[in-house]
Amino acid sequence: MTFTSVSTAQTVKAVLFDVFGTVVDWRTGVAAAVRRFAGKHGLELDADAFADAWRSRYVPAMRQVSTGERPFVLLDVLHRENLDGVLEDLGLNPGRFSPAALDELNRAWHLLPPWPDSVPGITELKRDYIVGPLSNGNTSLLLDMAKACGLPWDLILGSDVSKAYKPTVEAYLRPTAMLGLEPGEIMLAAAHEADLAAAHEAGLAAAFISRPLERGPGIPGAGVATKPWDLSVSSITELADLL
Amino acid sequence: MTFTSVSTAQTVKAVLFDVFGTVVDWRTGVAAAVRRFAGKHGLELDADAFADAWRSRYVPAMRQVSTGERPFVLLDVLHRENLDGVLEDLGLNPGRFSPAALDELNRAWHLLPPWPDSVPGITELKRDYIVGPLSNGNTSLLLDMAKACGLPWDLILGSDVSKAYKPTVEAYLRPTAMLGLEPGEIMLAAAHEADLAAAHEAGLAAAFISRPLERGPGIPGAGVATKPWDLSVSSITELADLL
Repeated sequence: MTFTSVSTAQTVKAVLFDVFGTVVDWRTGVAAAVRRFAGKHGLELDADAFADAWRSRYVPAMRQVSTGERPFVLLDVLHRENLDGVLEDLGLNPGRFSPAALDELNRAWHLLPPWPDSVPGITELKRDYIVGPLSNGNTSLLLDMAKACGLPWDLILGSDVSKAYKPTVEAYLRPTAMLGLEPGEIMLAAAHEADLAAAHEAGLAAAFISRPLERGPGIPGAGVATKPWDLSVSSITELADLL
Repeated sequence: MTFTSVSTAQTVKAVLFDVFGTVVDWRTGVAAAVRRFAGKHGLELDADAFADAWRSRYVPAMRQVSTGERPFVLLDVLHRENLDGVLEDLGLNPGRFSPAALDELNRAWHLLPPWPDSVPGITELKRDYIVGPLSNGNTSLLLDMAKACGLPWDLILGSDVSKAYKPTVEAYLRPTAMLGLEPGEIMLAAAHEADLAAAHEAGLAAAFISRPLERGPGIPGAGVATKPWDLSVSSITELADLL
């Protein structure tokens, strides 16, 4: 499936977005919340490294659900468990903090800042396409984020609706069915090639959005696609101009 | 639960709407589609009476699902079955029309016109509240309608997400949980008292929106609330002004 003609592009009716890294800058947002938490509790720590450590537990935690090792739980729950793990790795007993303080820190994932092109790009795409997230975030997380950022989604179907985490095929096909569309009528826009590959496998079109700063500055190869996806762009506004 | 103080009103974080009759004028929209269908197929029929007959099969059809007589099916499917029933009642064999023509007529329910105050009222409420449908419509139906009308929902969780039809309690509590809210943090706005009563029973706040013309002009008692709901208004813009 490649965009060799205008007519192929015209079959797309919905553009759905990966969110963490593609639409919002999780590292900057989480590190800022960690810095506030550390300041409040008199901790000396590297907030960027903390954000990276927290994020590094994301895929393994979801994999436990995807393999059936544990039943589906909200991403909020996984993030909260992973926070305990990061604190323990730093030699900090999570029990020394109040549950409310840890829950508040965990809510950082609900309130991440968008990349500068996200709101204008999605707003532009919304005129001609259905726009929504196709994220591992739960609905309430994505809703809080949208309200805080002004992300103008047409609808939000979180991973708790499909009860499946990407890159399992159900995570792509259940929302597709709920939209009343065929897989080929949906384009996934994402900064991560594993996500795009799984979407493509499920029959969706795939657009690569380059986000070289997602994991911080100076990462070799960051933001470079290794394959020719249906589209490959450096911003959501560029995607909107092409579609 | 009554709005005796400003602080009670302030506990509401989301205003969710019944859709058919409350946000959109199903009778005018369906009758217009029936008129087009009749013209195309050379039929003489009363389009308003057709719309009423179609709608009258709505509650009994959902009840079959709610009682467990049949498994959950999309409202699109129920509408389509009910269309066959209405045609048969008029002595018209559905088999004389192409499936595509009947499906197109069935799509009338996706493309109903909003009442004049719906888009401005919901737009105003969206500034301070989460806004969304809480409808028996399926997600794709509500999405098509929102795109066609410009209804600025924050999110759309159709009855196919909760797999339950109002007035069963799950139809209110499953979306509540997905929003990460308590029942008392949600207000249902609806033109139908049975819906409001069930929402209230589930712990939601309840606002009555008077829609005296929903079932056409000259219906005695139409649009009059028989109980003092938490709020009782004559339009969604009035609701926005009060909240």
